[in-house]
Amino acid sequence: MTPIMTKSQAAELITAARIRKKLSWADIAEKLDAPLVWCVAALLGQHPMTQAQAEVVCELLDLEAAVAESLQLQPSRGIEPAKLSDPTIYRFHEALAVYGPALKELIHEEFGDGIMSAINFRVDIKRRADPDGDRVVVTFDGKFLDYRW
Amino acid sequence: MTPIMTKSQAAELITAARIRKKLSWADIAEKLDAPLVWCVAALLGQHPMTQAQAEVVCELLDLEAAVAESLQLQPSRGIEPAKLSDPTIYRFHEALAVYGPALKELIHEEFGDGIMSAINFRVDIKRRADPDGDRVVVTFDGKFLDYRW
Amino acid sequence: MTPIMTKSQAAELITAARIRKKLSWADIAEKLDAPLVWCVAALLGQHPMTQAQAEVVCELLDLEAAVAESLQLQPSRGIEPAKLSDPTIYRFHEALAVYGPALKELIHEEFGDGIMSAINFRVDIKRRADPDGDRVVVTFDGKFLDYRW
Amino acid sequence: MTPIMTKSQAAELITAARIRKKLSWADIAEKLDAPLVWCVAALLGQHPMTQAQAEVVCELLDLEAAVAESLQLQPSRGIEPAKLSDPTIYRFHEALAVYGPALKELIHEEFGDGIMSAINFRVDIKRRADPDGDRVVVTFDGKFLDYRW
Amino acid sequence: MTPIMTKSQAAELITAARIRKKLSWADIAEKLDAPLVWCVAALLGQHPMTQAQAEVVCELLDLEAAVAESLQLQPSRGIEPAKLSDPTIYRFHEALAVYGPALKELIHEEFGDGIMSAINFRVDIKRRADPDGDRVVVTFDGKFLDYRW
Amino acid sequence: MTPIMTKSQAAELITAARIRKKLSWADIAEKLDAPLVWCVAALLGQHPMTQAQAEVVCELLDLEAAVAESLQLQPSRGIEPAKLSDPTIYRFHEALAVYGPALKELIHEEFGDGIMSAINFRVDIKRRADPDGDRVVVTFDGKFLDYRW
Amino acid sequence: MTPIMTKSQAAELITAARIRKKLSWADIAEKLDAPLVWCVAALLGQHPMTQAQAEVVCELLDLEAAVAESLQLQPSRGIEPAKLSDPTIYRFHEALAVYGPALKELIHEEFGDGIMSAINFRVDIKRRADPDGDRVVVTFDGKFLDYRW
Amino acid sequence: MTPIMTKSQAAELITAARIRKKLSWADIAEKLDAPLVWCVAALLGQHPMTQAQAEVVCELLDLEAAVAESLQLQPSRGIEPAKLSDPTIYRFHEALAVYGPALKELIHEEFGDGIMSAINFRVDIKRRADPDGDRVVVTFDGKFLDYRW
Amino acid sequence: MTPIMTKSQAAELITAARIRKKLSWADIAEKLDAPLVWCVAALLGQHPMTQAQAEVVCELLDLEAAVAESLQLQPSRGIEPAKLSDPTIYRFHEALAVYGPALKELIHEEFGDGIMSAINFRVDIKRRADPDGDRVVVTFDGKFLDYRW
Amino acid sequence: MTPIMTKSQAAELITAARIRKKLSWADIAEKLDAPLVWCVAALLGQHPMTQAQAEVVCELLDLEAAVAESLQLQPSRGIEPAKLSDPTIYRFHEALAVYGPALKELIHEEFGDGIMSAINFRVDIKRRADPDGDRVVVTFDGKFLDYRW
Repeated sequence: MTPIMTKSQAAELITAARIRKKLSWADIAEKLDAPLVWCVAALLGQHPMTQAQAEVVCELLDLEAAVAESLQLQPSRGIEPAKLSDPTIYRFHEALAVYGPALKELIHEEFGDGIMSAINFRVDIKRRADPDGDRVVVTFDGKFLDYRW
Repeated sequence: MTPIMTKSQAAELITAARIRKKLSWADIAEKLDAPLVWCVAALLGQHPMTQAQAEVVCELLDLEAAVAESLQLQPSRGIEPAKLSDPTIYRFHEALAVYGPALKELIHEEFGDGIMSAINFRVDIKRRADPDGDRVVVTFDGKFLDYRW
Repeated sequence: MTPIMTKSQAAELITAARIRKKLSWADIAEKLDAPLVWCVAALLGQHPMTQAQAEVVCELLDLEAAVAESLQLQPSRGIEPAKLSDPTIYRFHEALAVYGPALKELIHEEFGDGIMSAINFRVDIKRRADPDGDRVVVTFDGKFLDYRW
Repeated sequence: MTPIMTKSQAAELITAARIRKKLSWADIAEKLDAPLVWCVAALLGQHPMTQAQAEVVCELLDLEAAVAESLQLQPSRGIEPAKLSDPTIYRFHEALAVYGPALKELIHEEFGDGIMSAINFRVDIKRRADPDGDRVVVTFDGKFLDYRW
Repeated sequence: MTPIMTKSQAAELITAARIRKKLSWADIAEKLDAPLVWCVAALLGQHPMTQAQAEVVCELLDLEAAVAESLQLQPSRGIEPAKLSDPTIYRFHEALAVYGPALKELIHEEFGDGIMSAINFRVDIKRRADPDGDRVVVTFDGKFLDYRW
Repeated sequence: MTPIMTKSQAAELITAARIRKKLSWADIAEKLDAPLVWCVAALLGQHPMTQAQAEVVCELLDLEAAVAESLQLQPSRGIEPAKLSDPTIYRFHEALAVYGPALKELIHEEFGDGIMSAINFRVDIKRRADPDGDRVVVTFDGKFLDYRW
Repeated sequence: MTPIMTKSQAAELITAARIRKKLSWADIAEKLDAPLVWCVAALLGQHPMTQAQAEVVCELLDLEAAVAESLQLQPSRGIEPAKLSDPTIYRFHEALAVYGPALKELIHEEFGDGIMSAINFRVDIKRRADPDGDRVVVTFDGKFLDYRW
Repeated sequence: MTPIMTKSQAAELITAARIRKKLSWADIAEKLDAPLVWCVAALLGQHPMTQAQAEVVCELLDLEAAVAESLQLQPSRGIEPAKLSDPTIYRFHEALAVYGPALKELIHEEFGDGIMSAINFRVDIKRRADPDGDRVVVTFDGKFLDYRW
Repeated sequence: MTPIMTKSQAAELITAARIRKKLSWADIAEKLDAPLVWCVAALLGQHPMTQAQAEVVCELLDLEAAVAESLQLQPSRGIEPAKLSDPTIYRFHEALAVYGPALKELIHEEFGDGIMSAINFRVDIKRRADPDGDRVVVTFDGKFLDYRW
Repeated sequence: MTPIMTKSQAAELITAARIRKKLSWADIAEKLDAPLVWCVAALLGQHPMTQAQAEVVCELLDLEAAVAESLQLQPSRGIEPAKLSDPTIYRFHEALAVYGPALKELIHEEFGDGIMSAINFRVDIKRRADPDGDRVVVTFDGKFLDYRW
């Protein structure tokens, strides 16, 4: 018996294969017929894939079966602390430091006491052309859950 | 000479007045003709207001002139650590822990090496009706900035 | 305009009144016709009360109107770090350190990929007689939420 | 002389074998005739097993004798910090942040000065059907210990 | 209604009265007919006193009734982080850093899997004369609790 | 030249040999004619052994010479942070959180300004029979050192 | 005897007076005939001023003598942790996270083993016009100190 | 498929080759015709290189193709915490602790509400001769970005 | 009964009086006929003074009796974390980060297994003239204590 | 190309060779004709050695050339956090917690606003015979640097 390849080892192999084969994340998502952000998150280890999805990935990227086995594992979700200060990721946290309490006020004003679910939830990212420089547009879309005893 | 009222003291007085006068944040934003999230963030102390804006707020809420003086101050921006674990705010951070590295990959794939600005930036929040329960939709919209030496 | 009394100030006054009037938490919950743990949590500042509930509390405990105003505020939820090491509270965290990963495995085995909601959620506490010493029985009861994109 | 396999290495091998052999945790607990949560916790390294129990596990899962030796070790108990922010585990901690001080008040009201033991203690998890969505029900059941000098 | 005096405020007043009246902790413990370490801990806010005990203390030290009320409160137990590095306290923690894992091994060897209770527990401190310099002798005496499911 | 085996590697080999040979820590201490807690601490890497002691250990446990070389090294003392939350070790720290400031008061009352040495120091552990359940009795015995300029 | 006004209290009064009198930091620095960044740092509490300088400041801003007394105090230097995440200050730290190790390499390559002094040191800030948007130019200028035993 | 060499592994090989071949960082930057600080930062793993640049580096330093592949990767930017206290790097952080709030005041006074970009940004380092000892002169030059909603 | 003035309040009053009366620390130490560093440390709250010493200080500085009472209190020793990064204090910690492990090696080589006492200990500070710039010379002088069981 | 041996690997080999060859640190320092503390610090990885020094060390200790190459590297200076709580090292930090603010006061009183350099700096350690037990005497000797703009 050997341990199952960890999801971070699988993610490293997927990343290497994707770069060497010059495939974009969008190419893979399209092959999987899956939402783009979900797909990248799953390949980086944050969502379990079905067996069928995992096999499509391994075939597309010429990866060994151990990667497919790992992709089906239930993950322990979260981010390595070292990545929180990468500037591209940090800007999202800075925005929440500035606007988080305002978003909380407005969720309560509009919906009452509760939260935006991060489980019944999706994220999208788009490019929006703008004469002053194109813009990154990220949408968080989660079901409202009210505190219900 | 007396020190200027701190922005958190001003925010407490604004919150008290808003609740007692039964005004919504949306009412105040409309009066100011300003974007809703910007307006709440500014009243909570994260953006300086112009003198005209600050005076509109104080008149609307019957607040003393010291509040208006404070609202015009340049802020030191950020969030108190104790607020990060409030569930309504925490869910945004959890979403970034799960999807942040995926968003980073997709920003680089689409735009190249750089970041979504958190300065040339806006946030919107909307309610979207859904038969399975209405949804909170939050949009982050920031200019892409490429690493340019 | 004066700021609204903070929820921790209100909780201190409620605690003082409860002790001096020799009322139990159960007495208050009964008067409010509300679940016991919810009621104590709300009085300690973790849930907003309705105006009617807040007024019942203040009448029962002879407290000023400012307490009732504070009890209706939307809270910023969480625990002061210093309280985490109180032995009575710490034992719950120790139990989660020992059994948390096992509970995660069993939630996934029984329900699939998802979580026990802490929002659509209730807690109960009971005494169970036992010849070897009575037992504290605490039940967490939350809706299962599956990761649903 | 070689060191004893660590409990986390043993847990990885057990997890791999369980998945590949398509055995549920419940199957293993039944074979061991042991409480379900205790059993998963022990296999993840939080309780020592008897030699007989450890051998049953290894036979059932076709694992080498080194795993059985490791399962009998006295553990150093606790959770890796990285797992605390996994959403499935985090919700329990969030619930304690919101309700922990209320539980403390009610333990003292009902039992006096003391704690719920986390040693003379058991945890159970059940699924409860509910028309609004099935529920996760987790019960903590510990002996009350009073401060006794 | 006024809040109850906090236990740390009560402890400051007790300390001031004790010093000004030139009473030792041992004098107070004797008057209370209570174990010495328990008594000092209770007066510093770590144990609730009975009404009778609290009144003896206030009479002995000429303190106001508010102190007696505070002494009967259920405490939130723990130590301020700043006190952990006071050299007199730090040496105990250093000793546990050096000998803690050895004590764990020996508890398990002698008693099996379990802990020394810190609740059904007492501490004593003695002076032992020694020609090379007198010694501080501190005894921890707690009931063994075995992990019992 | 090869590096000296680290003390934690040596401790792992000693632990494995002790378990497989079914020797208790007390057996080893007796063979070494050394105090029990000192001996376990030394074998876990917290005290250097003499060459004679180290060789007795290796002969008794059939360990290679590299272990004996490591046991004679001067240690860098301390505990891994992960072990501080093991329940058997944590209870000692909890007791110090509750009683540490009281012990400090009593050391100063009895001895004056100074500390209990953690260097000129010994620890003993005993089992004390008790009809309500046997007790763990741990004694810290250190020379008093006064602040002496 | 009254304590000396703290430097942070003095800084709050100076800031209030500066804003109400519509004086820029540059105006004050010019009056003091002192470098601009040094002057602002001193008024915020990071450098002691001479009596003559402190009196010029108080006269210019109509402040009480207690402010002048405080400005002459020797400071305990440093920044409040909450200010480190203000975006305007954070960008400097982010730049050092990205380029700090490169600057270290180049200091050693050009000067040998040593440091840029932060004591024999000055900082300047300039605006540089640029058709793509004006630029902030900050110069750190410190004496090289070589490790010299 | 093998994972791509990490950027820190590549940096170690580049450093070793540079030292053994007695090439300065300036020599490499000149060969690449790139700004000096950018070039060192990129070779240490903080900027992606083009394929052409990466191949020049590997040829110059006789390094394997895997290094060139790694140099083209998109980095996760940031500094290891252990390096922050290296004295040569620490002095920059100390200077920001002393002068950061002053720089913030002056940026706002000169430019209004906004930041110095750390993305549209460059750093230079120069030696300036000085009779009292030569000086390290480091210039941060970033585009001003105003908060623009 | 009023609480005793805290040692940090007493230190602020002593500092204010010392500055306004233009007395140096050396003047006070001489009046007390006490070692200089001990004396400053005691006045800042790190050592208890005798009644006679405390009264000399209050007479010399025209301070109220409450200061003298506070100076005789047994201190809780330690430094506020914010002061650790003051550059004048930080350099001592940096020196220990660089040379601490070397000092440990040399203490063990010269004295055997043990420590330099920080209790039976004194510190002196001197100015040493030097043509390249005068030097600060600080001497730590502590009794060697060997690990003695 | 292979990476250069890290300084901590080199230090482990040097330590092993020194112990096996029964050479003291003083023997090595004498051979190098270098100050004792400097020499130990350099061998532990805190100072670069010249090629000549590094070769003397390797010859004396029969170490491979890779050690000599590593000893000449520019270090990243600092201490592993785990070593800070080793009792022999901790006592120095405790002494600074107690006396650091007093040393700061006395440096400013004697020298004015500035610091003791930790770069133009040396440390010595001596044994001083004393009838009450020999003493460890450590001298820090650094150039005074005044804040000079």
